Amino acid sequence: MSTGFFRDITEIPFEGADSTNPLAFRHYSPNEVVMGKRMEDHLRFATCYWHNFAWPGSDPFGGQTFDRPWFPADSMELAKLKADVAFEMFTLLKSPYYCFHDADVRPEGANFAENTKNLNEIVDYFAQKQEETGVKLLWGTANLFSQVKFMSGASTNPDPDVFAFCAATIKTCMDATHRLGGENYVLWGGREGYETLLNTDLAKEDAQMGRMLNLVVEHKHKIGFKGEILVEPKPQEPSKHQYDYDTATVYGFLKRHGLENEVKVNIEQGHAILAGHSFEHEIATATSLGILGSIDMNRNDYQSGWDTDQFPNNVPEVALAYYHILQDGGLKTGGTNFDAKLRRQSLDAEDLLIAHIGGMDVCARGLKAAAAMIEDGTLPNFVKDRYADWDKPVNQSMLAGKESLDDIAARVEAQGINPKPRSGKQEYLENVVNRFV
Amino acid sequence: MSTGFFRDITEIPFEGADSTNPLAFRHYSPNEVVMGKRMEDHLRFATCYWHNFAWPGSDPFGGQTFDRPWFPADSMELAKLKADVAFEMFTLLKSPYYCFHDADVRPEGANFAENTKNLNEIVDYFAQKQEETGVKLLWGTANLFSQVKFMSGASTNPDPDVFAFCAATIKTCMDATHRLGGENYVLWGGREGYETLLNTDLAKEDAQMGRMLNLVVEHKHKIGFKGEILVEPKPQEPSKHQYDYDTATVYGFLKRHGLENEVKVNIEQGHAILAGHSFEHEIATATSLGILGSIDMNRNDYQSGWDTDQFPNNVPEVALAYYHILQDGGLKTGGTNFDAKLRRQSLDAEDLLIAHIGGMDVCARGLKAAAAMIEDGTLPNFVKDRYADWDKPVNQSMLAGKESLDDIAARVEAQGINPKPRSGKQEYLENVVNRFV
Amino acid sequence: MSTGFFRDITEIPFEGADSTNPLAFRHYSPNEVVMGKRMEDHLRFATCYWHNFAWPGSDPFGGQTFDRPWFPADSMELAKLKADVAFEMFTLLKSPYYCFHDADVRPEGANFAENTKNLNEIVDYFAQKQEETGVKLLWGTANLFSQVKFMSGASTNPDPDVFAFCAATIKTCMDATHRLGGENYVLWGGREGYETLLNTDLAKEDAQMGRMLNLVVEHKHKIGFKGEILVEPKPQEPSKHQYDYDTATVYGFLKRHGLENEVKVNIEQGHAILAGHSFEHEIATATSLGILGSIDMNRNDYQSGWDTDQFPNNVPEVALAYYHILQDGGLKTGGTNFDAKLRRQSLDAEDLLIAHIGGMDVCARGLKAAAAMIEDGTLPNFVKDRYADWDKPVNQSMLAGKESLDDIAARVEAQGINPKPRSGKQEYLENVVNRFV
Amino acid sequence: MSTGFFRDITEIPFEGADSTNPLAFRHYSPNEVVMGKRMEDHLRFATCYWHNFAWPGSDPFGGQTFDRPWFPADSMELAKLKADVAFEMFTLLKSPYYCFHDADVRPEGANFAENTKNLNEIVDYFAQKQEETGVKLLWGTANLFSQVKFMSGASTNPDPDVFAFCAATIKTCMDATHRLGGENYVLWGGREGYETLLNTDLAKEDAQMGRMLNLVVEHKHKIGFKGEILVEPKPQEPSKHQYDYDTATVYGFLKRHGLENEVKVNIEQGHAILAGHSFEHEIATATSLGILGSIDMNRNDYQSGWDTDQFPNNVPEVALAYYHILQDGGLKTGGTNFDAKLRRQSLDAEDLLIAHIGGMDVCARGLKAAAAMIEDGTLPNFVKDRYADWDKPVNQSMLAGKESLDDIAARVEAQGINPKPRSGKQEYLENVVNRFV
Repeated sequence: MSTGFFRDITEIPFEGADSTNPLAFRHYSPNEVVMGKRMEDHLRFATCYWHNFAWPGSDPFGGQTFDRPWFPADSMELAKLKADVAFEMFTLLKSPYYCFHDADVRPEGANFAENTKNLNEIVDYFAQKQEETGVKLLWGTANLFSQVKFMSGASTNPDPDVFAFCAATIKTCMDATHRLGGENYVLWGGREGYETLLNTDLAKEDAQMGRMLNLVVEHKHKIGFKGEILVEPKPQEPSKHQYDYDTATVYGFLKRHGLENEVKVNIEQGHAILAGHSFEHEIATATSLGILGSIDMNRNDYQSGWDTDQFPNNVPEVALAYYHILQDGGLKTGGTNFDAKLRRQSLDAEDLLIAHIGGMDVCARGLKAAAAMIEDGTLPNFVKDRYADWDKPVNQSMLAGKESLDDIAARVEAQGINPKPRSGKQEYLENVVNRFV
Repeated sequence: MSTGFFRDITEIPFEGADSTNPLAFRHYSPNEVVMGKRMEDHLRFATCYWHNFAWPGSDPFGGQTFDRPWFPADSMELAKLKADVAFEMFTLLKSPYYCFHDADVRPEGANFAENTKNLNEIVDYFAQKQEETGVKLLWGTANLFSQVKFMSGASTNPDPDVFAFCAATIKTCMDATHRLGGENYVLWGGREGYETLLNTDLAKEDAQMGRMLNLVVEHKHKIGFKGEILVEPKPQEPSKHQYDYDTATVYGFLKRHGLENEVKVNIEQGHAILAGHSFEHEIATATSLGILGSIDMNRNDYQSGWDTDQFPNNVPEVALAYYHILQDGGLKTGGTNFDAKLRRQSLDAEDLLIAHIGGMDVCARGLKAAAAMIEDGTLPNFVKDRYADWDKPVNQSMLAGKESLDDIAARVEAQGINPKPRSGKQEYLENVVNRFV
Repeated sequence: MSTGFFRDITEIPFEGADSTNPLAFRHYSPNEVVMGKRMEDHLRFATCYWHNFAWPGSDPFGGQTFDRPWFPADSMELAKLKADVAFEMFTLLKSPYYCFHDADVRPEGANFAENTKNLNEIVDYFAQKQEETGVKLLWGTANLFSQVKFMSGASTNPDPDVFAFCAATIKTCMDATHRLGGENYVLWGGREGYETLLNTDLAKEDAQMGRMLNLVVEHKHKIGFKGEILVEPKPQEPSKHQYDYDTATVYGFLKRHGLENEVKVNIEQGHAILAGHSFEHEIATATSLGILGSIDMNRNDYQSGWDTDQFPNNVPEVALAYYHILQDGGLKTGGTNFDAKLRRQSLDAEDLLIAHIGGMDVCARGLKAAAAMIEDGTLPNFVKDRYADWDKPVNQSMLAGKESLDDIAARVEAQGINPKPRSGKQEYLENVVNRFV
Repeated sequence: MSTGFFRDITEIPFEGADSTNPLAFRHYSPNEVVMGKRMEDHLRFATCYWHNFAWPGSDPFGGQTFDRPWFPADSMELAKLKADVAFEMFTLLKSPYYCFHDADVRPEGANFAENTKNLNEIVDYFAQKQEETGVKLLWGTANLFSQVKFMSGASTNPDPDVFAFCAATIKTCMDATHRLGGENYVLWGGREGYETLLNTDLAKEDAQMGRMLNLVVEHKHKIGFKGEILVEPKPQEPSKHQYDYDTATVYGFLKRHGLENEVKVNIEQGHAILAGHSFEHEIATATSLGILGSIDMNRNDYQSGWDTDQFPNNVPEVALAYYHILQDGGLKTGGTNFDAKLRRQSLDAEDLLIAHIGGMDVCARGLKAAAAMIEDGTLPNFVKDRYADWDKPVNQSMLAGKESLDDIAARVEAQGINPKPRSGKQEYLENVVNRFV
């Protein structure tokens, strides 16, 4: 019952590091145990629906390049063909999870009611597909950015009807996610921002966005959804400025709206880079704030100023990401989603497989390297030792607020405190990392 | 009793827009009334001590270029000569305020006690100078970044002795600021960040920084300091990453440590740009969050990736900054500080005056343009009208949380809500701005 | 015979600086004389076809927003309706020139022959329109980037058939431009670059691109086209790297292929910024190399890493651009083209007019300011004086190569040459500029 | 005869990949043969004098952090102590080469004559050190950027006396390099650029810079120096804009001044990144133009906008650099120089060794990976095959200029040429790279 889209490819075997077969895994072996857990359970890979099955290969200067039998997926029949190929690919790739927006999977309707009807029909189909294949839903989400109605914002639109339309759409997507056993629900606010401050009221839009996220959390509890609600930071693009700029900004927003214990973040490498951060910075920031939810493992080109959504290919970078994730206890409901797209010149059906295989292998190597760093202990112990003087009672006392500035100044003067610098050993630590990657 | 540093220049007159005298104001006229307030009282100009009187013209690839009679200011005598010239310049420029770090104004001592003694001696001298000239202190601050002891952080240092040394130093600087009638106290955390995550514990450093800021606020109340405590965001440089990345990040930090009603921000144009924002974005963000304190009116070069601290020269940009400030009710305890430095090739004493005159004139033009935009009303009314539908009861109710997602979805379906887009009119609004700049 | 697209708008009057009419010019008055020449003859405005009439308002995250009666322009009838509106707009705007790609103006054919036929038919129609309206063609160009066949390059494609197809297409576009009396022919190489070096042979692609440009020059001479051939630099986007990176890079390319006297550049503000340069840098570089051809007067957002193609709105920046152009003797066959697009939220037909009016007014103000700077003389004379010592015979001799390093070293030692620095006066010069903008 | 600076460290052994000794090589084994050549002869490592021995750890916001017994090296005695430690370090590291500026190695004199005398004395000392240790000089260069006299340019200064002073200084540095058997002479133009176009005449400065480089080439031939003359591109910093922006720009400059066969480039990874390029882009551009000379193997932080000069630590990136170098036949007179500096917090003497060991190991791994890619053949063959159709006679003929645009158009029409796209296979190729790194 193959769709034939991938011709005669029936499985992607694990062949080990020496394999030169482009359609085999060299490092990703789901059952291999790393730090006491199966690799699959650590990495929790997900394949995204939109870039793989909905995007035609267009860019701002050119149109469709991919020739897919389900294009244009404007009928339920074509939407189901698309789903057949999608689940076939998830299975071939041994990808335990997938992710989708409503607009990726259903034909666009003329209004909310039609959209809902179309979504529900395809959700039925997905439920059956999940049953057949064992593939699970990592997260669902609503596309509130592509249609012209969202051009000036979704929840942050000056038009309250757009807010209402978005709220209604989110409800259907949350319900669909819940029904499909999704483990998280994601909000990415591509139009939640502004093009120009000249027509924007930041305070009003903040209040609107805060209300919407509270509605989402309330609905989650009402329907008994046990997954996490995740916000995905991105600094810009499509909007000139987006409110969910980066993890620290999202944290402030959550705190302002009383949501810091209800909502976490889905961090994408490419978005981190667009915001002027490294991927590991965003992850470490989220773990230090207790809000790491899930990751989108797709890189940006360091020389491009827009979201290139490329598959990861740099093991040292990926290893540092997993190092911080493992130090946080590993991924919980979250996973490693590839919000990555083929280059638009990668026309062949097999390119979809090859790209994911490469990305999964890179993650497998990164995970194993990160685990080895932790098991070795040199790196975490270095950090622990560096701050060890803070464990002394006098310093604990100072940190606990038992001394005032006057007290501390008196102590500094009385004891002649004049700190001596110690080497930060950055190069040494980078060399240690290179023992593992 | 002129120092002779500026030779025979005895005043900088206001000569009006047609003047070609490089040593005259063409637009800044302190007593001119704008929107019912004297221009001086709107702009509240301050001149910084460090770039003008302490920096030798060096950059990472070259040493001293400026020939100043007080260099090296390593004795009290030279420190006083420096102060004489500084107050002479403030007076010449009709700059009502100035700002300083401890390290700018006193010789560096061998330890905390010597630093304190030196600082106190120069504070006495400043008090007398202020009395003589009428120049006031906009804000004081502590330099906790230049000495080797701060290389791995000030409050965020892994060494608690550095924390203590910083706390003690801040105490002396707050006391000095208080004694000199300073209207604000500023904290800029140049070393509050990291070079590499490999040797950094983000959670510990956050706790330390939160404690320090609480100590500062407690000390403020203890000594009866009525000014504002201001944090100055900057994303990076000198550190690879700085914790006070931008206004939104600082807000989250304040909220996390219970300080959002005690601390505001000092926003710098150049730092905004380094963080990927426009100046007006940072100002508007701060005003929407209620934490705008003061501004540093010095631009970065858009093509340079480091802090160039140039004098403002683009009226349209400056006008947008003041537009948001005026909409927030104008500057309160804060001011317009020039944290700007001459280009290192601008060797002449008069260049110091010329640079400030140009910057002050640009600000005066920007302020007048901003006031005209507000008085005209087209721009603010456009924004008000754009969100007007939110004033309808049904929408107020939705925003107030009286409808759930289910309620809203039912309403969307029942009423067939299908929003129609309206033009955002960005080009029109930009043209309106150009009527005033 | 109005199309009705712009409803009842029948002209855009000049009303002077005090006008608040959004559909009037406040500064652009074609017949006003600046430095002895009509403003229209200085600025030589052109309106582009593609952004105004072919682009639907889409971006990478969203689809069509504009509702135009000629969409989709896939028939000759709709193409002619589009042309009717376009020439109506050119006329309303008093824009003396326009520019187009073949793909903007004709329906896409199934092959080269159909494309040619369609193009020729529309060229006939344009010829008649030009006759009727007096609007002229500033430049024509070929779209060699949108169709899938160009995805891996136009002249630099690994497939020589694509080279041939492009060559044939360029021929038809050059012929069309020639027939319509176009004053320049432009080549922008959006796909002339690479996505990854892993599949690219730089030397081969350079040879191919050099051959194509030589073919173009040979064809120009063969058909007696008197206009300039212009290459438009852009560093990236859509390609990760584009070969015509910036003006200096194009110069090297021209020189390598013996074309530095045959080809000039068309410089765009937004592309300059993407390449890490200011607009005036690119213009001044081109004038110093003798290859300035024309300009695209559309800015990028300084905080966005992609090509935003916005209308100019900052007079000081535009003034510096025209300052360098006027110093080069002004535009010759080139013009001021708005390769600018509405924000995708600017839905109203009148927004097309408003955006151009604003841009033209900004250019008019910039031009007048630039002319005033030159007539004033302070700025150009400062530069002249700064280099005056090079006019001394000994220095002219050194520059002419009449001294060797040994000779110069002997002279430095014998004469004890030890240069004394002089102030670069940057702030003073920036203040002088601000007298005029 | 150890200086004792590195305490009891007497050698850095090669211990293989499993070693955890921070003071041992894990991958760099000089005599190991890679593609038929010793690793040392491939990599040709050089250690730089300036960052290691002259830089005090300062940055724009802080002063000295390093405590070195030769600071301040303002006497000949201290300069010799510095040299003793330097050559000790070169020997410990098995670094076959070193590089220096005049100002790094000699005390600064009051004038040209004193500088020359000081330089010559230290050159004598270096000659003896080279003899004793076997360490060789990869390249020498002149520091024409640190002293105030160079603030407005070296050869491009508006003051011809500065040009003369620079010419004289270059002569002494070229002579010193020649005497020490240096294999290249480098020019980096840190001040050859501008801060503002308002005070700059680009054409004059270009003529001056062209003359200087011709003087250098003439002097090279006069003294019989057999090494290469290398220009080092950098886009900015310290200057806002630097004329030697990147490789393509330098090529255009060389071509303009008739020097393209006399001068090559020294490419630095960090400078490539500042210019918006990848390192491999700059290398591949240089090899395609035939002007690759040498490399500076020090990376920039991707999130920092200034030159961070860090040691390389990312094997995949380094491997791609050597892949292009090996395809060009490997390094000839050039080498792999570490123009890298410790982080200013890396205070320990051993950090100097650790940083270089890590960098050298990363290069060794990168080289071996690159060699394996070439020996494997998949990557180079893919590129070869991709362009294979260009080998057909009809296409060779077209490329050779035997067809005009008219001819080609006729052929396209007659043959119905309508190119079919082929997959670019970027992900596949990236996966292939990951088999080797």
